[in-house]
Amino acid sequence: MAASTPAVRRLSELAACVGGQVEGNPALEISGVNGLAEAGPTEISFYADGRYRSELEATRAAAVLADAGADVGPRACLRVANPHLAFAKISALFNPRPSFAPGLGKGAQVHPLARVHPEAAVMSGATVERGASVGARSVLFPGVYLGENAAVGEDCLLYPNVTVREGCRVGARVILHAGCVIGADGFGFAFDPSVPAHVKVPQAGIVRIEDDVEVGACSCIDRATFGETVIGRGTKIDNLVQIAHNVKVGELAILCGQVGISGSTEVGSGAVLAGQVGVVGHVRIGSMAKVGAQAGVSNSVPDGATVTGYPAIDHRVWLRSSVAFEHLSELIKDLRELKRRVQALEKKNER
Amino acid sequence: MAASTPAVRRLSELAACVGGQVEGNPALEISGVNGLAEAGPTEISFYADGRYRSELEATRAAAVLADAGADVGPRACLRVANPHLAFAKISALFNPRPSFAPGLGKGAQVHPLARVHPEAAVMSGATVERGASVGARSVLFPGVYLGENAAVGEDCLLYPNVTVREGCRVGARVILHAGCVIGADGFGFAFDPSVPAHVKVPQAGIVRIEDDVEVGACSCIDRATFGETVIGRGTKIDNLVQIAHNVKVGELAILCGQVGISGSTEVGSGAVLAGQVGVVGHVRIGSMAKVGAQAGVSNSVPDGATVTGYPAIDHRVWLRSSVAFEHLSELIKDLRELKRRVQALEKKNER
Amino acid sequence: MAASTPAVRRLSELAACVGGQVEGNPALEISGVNGLAEAGPTEISFYADGRYRSELEATRAAAVLADAGADVGPRACLRVANPHLAFAKISALFNPRPSFAPGLGKGAQVHPLARVHPEAAVMSGATVERGASVGARSVLFPGVYLGENAAVGEDCLLYPNVTVREGCRVGARVILHAGCVIGADGFGFAFDPSVPAHVKVPQAGIVRIEDDVEVGACSCIDRATFGETVIGRGTKIDNLVQIAHNVKVGELAILCGQVGISGSTEVGSGAVLAGQVGVVGHVRIGSMAKVGAQAGVSNSVPDGATVTGYPAIDHRVWLRSSVAFEHLSELIKDLRELKRRVQALEKKNER
Repeated sequence: MAASTPAVRRLSELAACVGGQVEGNPALEISGVNGLAEAGPTEISFYADGRYRSELEATRAAAVLADAGADVGPRACLRVANPHLAFAKISALFNPRPSFAPGLGKGAQVHPLARVHPEAAVMSGATVERGASVGARSVLFPGVYLGENAAVGEDCLLYPNVTVREGCRVGARVILHAGCVIGADGFGFAFDPSVPAHVKVPQAGIVRIEDDVEVGACSCIDRATFGETVIGRGTKIDNLVQIAHNVKVGELAILCGQVGISGSTEVGSGAVLAGQVGVVGHVRIGSMAKVGAQAGVSNSVPDGATVTGYPAIDHRVWLRSSVAFEHLSELIKDLRELKRRVQALEKKNER
Repeated sequence: MAASTPAVRRLSELAACVGGQVEGNPALEISGVNGLAEAGPTEISFYADGRYRSELEATRAAAVLADAGADVGPRACLRVANPHLAFAKISALFNPRPSFAPGLGKGAQVHPLARVHPEAAVMSGATVERGASVGARSVLFPGVYLGENAAVGEDCLLYPNVTVREGCRVGARVILHAGCVIGADGFGFAFDPSVPAHVKVPQAGIVRIEDDVEVGACSCIDRATFGETVIGRGTKIDNLVQIAHNVKVGELAILCGQVGISGSTEVGSGAVLAGQVGVVGHVRIGSMAKVGAQAGVSNSVPDGATVTGYPAIDHRVWLRSSVAFEHLSELIKDLRELKRRVQALEKKNER
Repeated sequence: MAASTPAVRRLSELAACVGGQVEGNPALEISGVNGLAEAGPTEISFYADGRYRSELEATRAAAVLADAGADVGPRACLRVANPHLAFAKISALFNPRPSFAPGLGKGAQVHPLARVHPEAAVMSGATVERGASVGARSVLFPGVYLGENAAVGEDCLLYPNVTVREGCRVGARVILHAGCVIGADGFGFAFDPSVPAHVKVPQAGIVRIEDDVEVGACSCIDRATFGETVIGRGTKIDNLVQIAHNVKVGELAILCGQVGISGSTEVGSGAVLAGQVGVVGHVRIGSMAKVGAQAGVSNSVPDGATVTGYPAIDHRVWLRSSVAFEHLSELIKDLRELKRRVQALEKKNER
């Protein structure tokens, strides 16, 4: 692994790169990016959230990225429409993807009938089985296992100890983080009371991961019973996420850490599932829907809706009910007292 | 890995295999199984749930499995008592377990004092330590680690990057999915305020997995402090499940994705824990009990009970309270208004 | 791996080791430790919890550890202030850390520019990249990956298939259990609507793990965007825990199984997070705070506080409200009936 030493760049170059306006010296030389608190005097940082006002005031950064409205004091500024996005792009300039020597490492196990592009790197301790293929510039770290007839596209990174089981398809520019498992058997059994036993339902399908997807460390995406489990283009999946057989996730979705999605459920494009959300099987999370952390989704969620809770309900209703929940025992006391008062009134009125 | 090409089979043969009645041409040739939506004109599918009526009507399948009562229209049908179970069995006919060349892969590390059955396969990049044993026809994929004196029975599949630590016992026909960890140290410490430090309690026990168990990808079953953590015969465990030290799971239990079970808890035979359920330590989930998704079980659950919620309570009570929870803020408003009305009545009545 | 055969020890030696008082024969020979139920007639066990009274009465143990007040019947006893802690220490005497032959295993991949201490063991199938270092007596099991310039201190155990990514720092006496992932990319993206795409924010920081930390199997600790994700000295982390980028965990914290902590959150020293707890980003869990199982923490928690629930609130309030929750549907019925009675009274009073 070798990252080319990042060149120093002028503020004006960075402005051109992200379509921003320079306030201050355009010839200012920038050597890198960093957080407001960590930045040194030749680095650029970003300011997009008033919560970080004091860090902004104390920063040693040479310049900051900010939007048109932000007061950044006397320091050099690169004005952009979306500071966070501009920061991501500039950071990528200074932190390019490392490059890896192509070819097969000494102890790599590549089947004679596998197809590994000459510009791909299969490191020592990685395995590529019969009929599997690896595209140009893709990198398989030690301990990666690529099963029979599995396919990995161009420019992918498969970090150490990733497993991609037989027949699964991985698109281009996909990142599979260490220890994730693509294409383990779906969890399907039929109970046979005559034995008794849970009889395994063969899981004969595959997983298909489209381009530009990222899958977090130790996340698991199970192969379909038949057909495909699909992760759509540009979707990002965090660590320790469980995706069951035959799930279809649309494009550009965000699945945060420890989310679990049960079998045959669909997640629409652009949907965001916060940490530890669980979703039952055979439902649909709508496009652009938002599901709050730890929610338990037991029914389909309409496009664009925001739900939270267990079971998940409209987010605003949940918020109100959650506030009320804290006062539940007082509520019961109040009700009891009110009963007594009504009873007293009733007695009086009987007379 | 090589799966023998599945032969075409007549409908009458399939009927004999699952004990079903043919409706239609018994000589009809079937080439495979598939879902209603995916099946081609020489495949058999199954229909067991009215929700899939429209898929049934549109299917191109040559025949369907269904129970006596189901209306499947004019197409050929195999009538069986349990279509799902029959489907599992027929699918297994067409999707047999792949076979693997026995012997040691080129880079396999097998200790001279390990005992690997000549019909077992230890692939390149797998490790078998001193005193460990692997039974006939069992397969260790690349990256599998079998610690000292660990034992794996016959006909097991240990997928890539599985770890079985020293001394653990795995029965026959067990499937350990990629990345799962059997026998890591239990989480036990004693606090020593004089240092201060959490002093490690040695975890000197093992894990014992009985026959016909399946453990999902990246699931973790910790070794006992003393004695054994046990997974009973035929129990099926999904992905990313955590089972702590000294847990005893009975036979034929079902633990769904991301379940967590704390130390020394018992799970009775046939119990079903849905996704993301958490169970505290030192309790007992009864035989045939059902625990709803995301439930937090803080007390023992009687045999056959169905519980849900956080903390887990009787499922029907939880359902009613959950419906009420949505209306909690209105309830408070109602109560407040009622108070005012009672107060007004009281004033009137004082006079 | 070789554990030296534990010598038999006299009860008086054990007493000296833990600072306890012998009741009974000080020359009694003890061959090992075990649970009350499992102990044989030459073993010592411990009794610290009245729930195990019947096991105490039935135990075959030669002696038990107990505190001053406990009635242990006629058997030999070692009186100590903290039986659990004394037990941990005595168990460590009888179950010493196994020792491993130093040096490089046959198939170990160690870069010529890596520094591996001659007393360290890098087993076959482990990888140490350029610039990485491994301290004295540390052990890397098969399948361990140590990235470029990563550093592991002295006396560490890295179990099979552990990944430590480039640049991360691991202190002394750290245990990383099988399959855990240190330093995967943090989950950071900026949305670019012009593509549309989630643009990756480079994760240029590292993970720093201080001395005496233990990280459970398949747990994931992400590298910082900039700077460091930190796990403080002596903190213990269970299996399948997710720790996001830039999180800072203090010293001696306890994070139980399947806990998830979102980005930039701080966990104070000595805090205890029970199983499946989730914490949002950018908050602080106070020192010595306790968070109950499955709690969803959405705000900072003061030092020493105990919270539970979803969202997490004061534990006692949560307990009361949870009890009330079970009666929520009756509450609604009661309220409805009360309304009717008030209405009736109002009608009467109108007259």
